[in-house]
Amino acid sequence: MEKVKLFATWSSPFVKRIVWALKLKNIEYEIIYEDLANKSPELLKYNPIHKKVPVLVHNEIPICESLVILEYIDETWKDACPLLPKDPLDKANERFWAKFGDELVLPSFFGYIMKQGKDQEEAKEATLTHLKRIEQLLSEKEFLSGESFGFLDLAFGWLAENARPLEVVTGLKLLDENSFPNLCTWKDKFLEIPAIKESWPDQETLILKYQEIKESKGK
Amino acid sequence: MEKVKLFATWSSPFVKRIVWALKLKNIEYEIIYEDLANKSPELLKYNPIHKKVPVLVHNEIPICESLVILEYIDETWKDACPLLPKDPLDKANERFWAKFGDELVLPSFFGYIMKQGKDQEEAKEATLTHLKRIEQLLSEKEFLSGESFGFLDLAFGWLAENARPLEVVTGLKLLDENSFPNLCTWKDKFLEIPAIKESWPDQETLILKYQEIKESKGK
Repeated sequence: MEKVKLFATWSSPFVKRIVWALKLKNIEYEIIYEDLANKSPELLKYNPIHKKVPVLVHNEIPICESLVILEYIDETWKDACPLLPKDPLDKANERFWAKFGDELVLPSFFGYIMKQGKDQEEAKEATLTHLKRIEQLLSEKEFLSGESFGFLDLAFGWLAENARPLEVVTGLKLLDENSFPNLCTWKDKFLEIPAIKESWPDQETLILKYQEIKESKGK
Repeated sequence: MEKVKLFATWSSPFVKRIVWALKLKNIEYEIIYEDLANKSPELLKYNPIHKKVPVLVHNEIPICESLVILEYIDETWKDACPLLPKDPLDKANERFWAKFGDELVLPSFFGYIMKQGKDQEEAKEATLTHLKRIEQLLSEKEFLSGESFGFLDLAFGWLAENARPLEVVTGLKLLDENSFPNLCTWKDKFLEIPAIKESWPDQETLILKYQEIKESKGK
């Protein structure tokens, strides 16, 4: 009897990729929403080093770090909806770009919402430079993972979800159809995947959240 | 006919793990030493995003990011000296700790050599805190990867190589036998592995390098 729990917050881009993987693989799970201002003793016990969500707890054993969890899910429930390719080179490519996304694209993207003045301008430039790499990656394939969606699409799914909220909050047309035609098409296709669509968060609530953060930073 | 090239520098902790993996798996390769102050056109072509070593070029195709390369090597030449375990949970654990090493332990360790004053004191405290986690990890096994060495040992190998140079340069007894008995034993065993021993860099040259860096920061 499998017992799967996910420690989460509703808006974390790192959590969403795990939710999608669990849904895509039809894994039943219990979701526990954390208040990050008042973390539960369970979260602190399961992830004592980083004290962060997501944590996947499978039969009482915790697994932390979202890309590590994603590979764990793919290797443990390997028959339904495989996420990573079998070829070592294809796999290395997806891992490389997922790391690039988490280390460079995601911080500059959210930095653009959160920062002020010159720092914000730098975050904007960095975001656009990084997104051009992803645009290029999509020039010969429909999804980031290839002809069908996979690991790398889930790893970049936060971008599809957060592009419009960022655009509304900052007033910048980020995924402009002239500059990023491939990313625009990818975004639409990604959001049409049923498991993604059904867990699509309310865009207005995300916008409100970012507006509040932005205002609190501006004070 | 396999053709394997490694773009490297002699002292990079990220390069050494790749050298060890190639030696352990008996893979013939050509090593190209880069001058980081004057990077070669090949390095910039093969790693246009990060412009860093190591880059592994296998039959003309580049793979970047040292932990990604390590998994690629293990998956491509899988018969000789397997590095990662087969069990998804064991694998997730090794990946988690390798990421912890690169994101937290390594920066604080080298920060302790490079930084000054209060920043240096913070880096020292962080290094000791992180090393206690690794010490604990070794309380029930001989190697970080388990009963025999593997992926996680190679990922932390820089620590075995750089502990004494750091001690000499900073005057701190880092891997103290009373505080870190498991890590001390691990370090000795790790350095006894023939493939590691034969590529052991000259400790005095490392010490000189760190002393020069430290002095240039102090100016």
